[in-house]
Amino acid sequence: MLNNIFIVLVNTTHPGNIGAAARAMKTMGLSQLRLVQPTHFPNTEATARASGADDVLHQAQLFSDYSSSLQDCQLVFGTSARKRTLTWPTLTPRECAERALATPHQKVAIVFGREHSGLTNQELEQCHFLIQIPTVPHFSSLNLASAVQILAYELQLVQQLPSSPPTLSTPQDTVASVEELQRFYAHLEQTLIEIDYFDPKKPKLLKRRLQRLFNRTQLLNSEVSLLRGMLTAIQATLRNKP
Amino acid sequence: MLNNIFIVLVNTTHPGNIGAAARAMKTMGLSQLRLVQPTHFPNTEATARASGADDVLHQAQLFSDYSSSLQDCQLVFGTSARKRTLTWPTLTPRECAERALATPHQKVAIVFGREHSGLTNQELEQCHFLIQIPTVPHFSSLNLASAVQILAYELQLVQQLPSSPPTLSTPQDTVASVEELQRFYAHLEQTLIEIDYFDPKKPKLLKRRLQRLFNRTQLLNSEVSLLRGMLTAIQATLRNKP
Repeated sequence: MLNNIFIVLVNTTHPGNIGAAARAMKTMGLSQLRLVQPTHFPNTEATARASGADDVLHQAQLFSDYSSSLQDCQLVFGTSARKRTLTWPTLTPRECAERALATPHQKVAIVFGREHSGLTNQELEQCHFLIQIPTVPHFSSLNLASAVQILAYELQLVQQLPSSPPTLSTPQDTVASVEELQRFYAHLEQTLIEIDYFDPKKPKLLKRRLQRLFNRTQLLNSEVSLLRGMLTAIQATLRNKP
Repeated sequence: MLNNIFIVLVNTTHPGNIGAAARAMKTMGLSQLRLVQPTHFPNTEATARASGADDVLHQAQLFSDYSSSLQDCQLVFGTSARKRTLTWPTLTPRECAERALATPHQKVAIVFGREHSGLTNQELEQCHFLIQIPTVPHFSSLNLASAVQILAYELQLVQQLPSSPPTLSTPQDTVASVEELQRFYAHLEQTLIEIDYFDPKKPKLLKRRLQRLFNRTQLLNSEVSLLRGMLTAIQATLRNKP
């Protein structure tokens, strides 16, 4: 359902790009826009460039920080036009659209970073997947609204397809939300400290590798419970041991 | 060859759209821009929106009439975002890109009409094919540069074929073999016994759910090592505890 797909624009500098992104969304049937600390909004330039997609701008949700804009989403994609130093599971726009619409009722965020610098590695680590929009290597400078247009176009194409691929989730057992995953990662981290498994020289590396692994899996709620049950059992065994 | 593909903009009113179209082209490896009677060109707004694609603007060819802009082309596509009264062989952007690049050395024009009214039926009749960019029926108002972006993107995708899907694995770090996974599952099972986490009534269910989870992830060798390291740390902590 295109209604469950949120386009998240992070720290957008030029209000014209927000308007143009709203227009790009509306042509392809998307309506849910989230803005994380835009430099100027609302703004007449945004409205002008929306060119008839004013309703998308009016309904846009404003957020003061990045994490809270993703809290209710079960699947988060971060876009990038350039090669990253961070290795992260990477999809094409087409694969992103297929996955985003594969599971009915899941809430999906597609995140677009700043005009000049994109997303930070820290922001990217909260994404399940990185989307790399194919460009020529020597000029990967896609306009923000153009990037939104390409993703929205691919989503509209998948939406028009008759069939959907099978999915693991059921009405009773849905894909875990970012909030639930964050609790799981915190629990995992605590347990790793208790079993003395962190490398104090590179404490963040292990956490990043584990997040990369589990984000890629799209854990179901039942699986998060299972894994957290294991963590609790490890902690209990350690504490109760005579 | 992308070098043989000409993007033809007819009677463009807003110079910003010409600049944005040049940028959209350059990100996807297109460089041949033709302008038929633009309202304002050259123009500072066009240069600003080109944002680094100035070379495409500088090389743009100006034409005083539509027909002469197509004279040397063997294959001409006309774009439209709306249903036409004129019945004309119609392709999707994807089909257009495949045809455009199917024959080497042929010169191909992809024509984009006016911002508000598109191409006239007379202009369309000089095209071999009509390209219909899919949009929602009630809001087909694609920005001109966005339409160029979608076509350029599809051309770049075809140009990149044959491609292999993106993968996390590297020559040094491949996806784990079944044999390695079986060793990991055995190690996991042993650890779960030690932390007393098996339900003795349904011993196989837990194992099956964990296998389903980790199989789905397609673990890399380095990740199997990481997870087995954690299991070993759990076991060591349990055994060494006084």
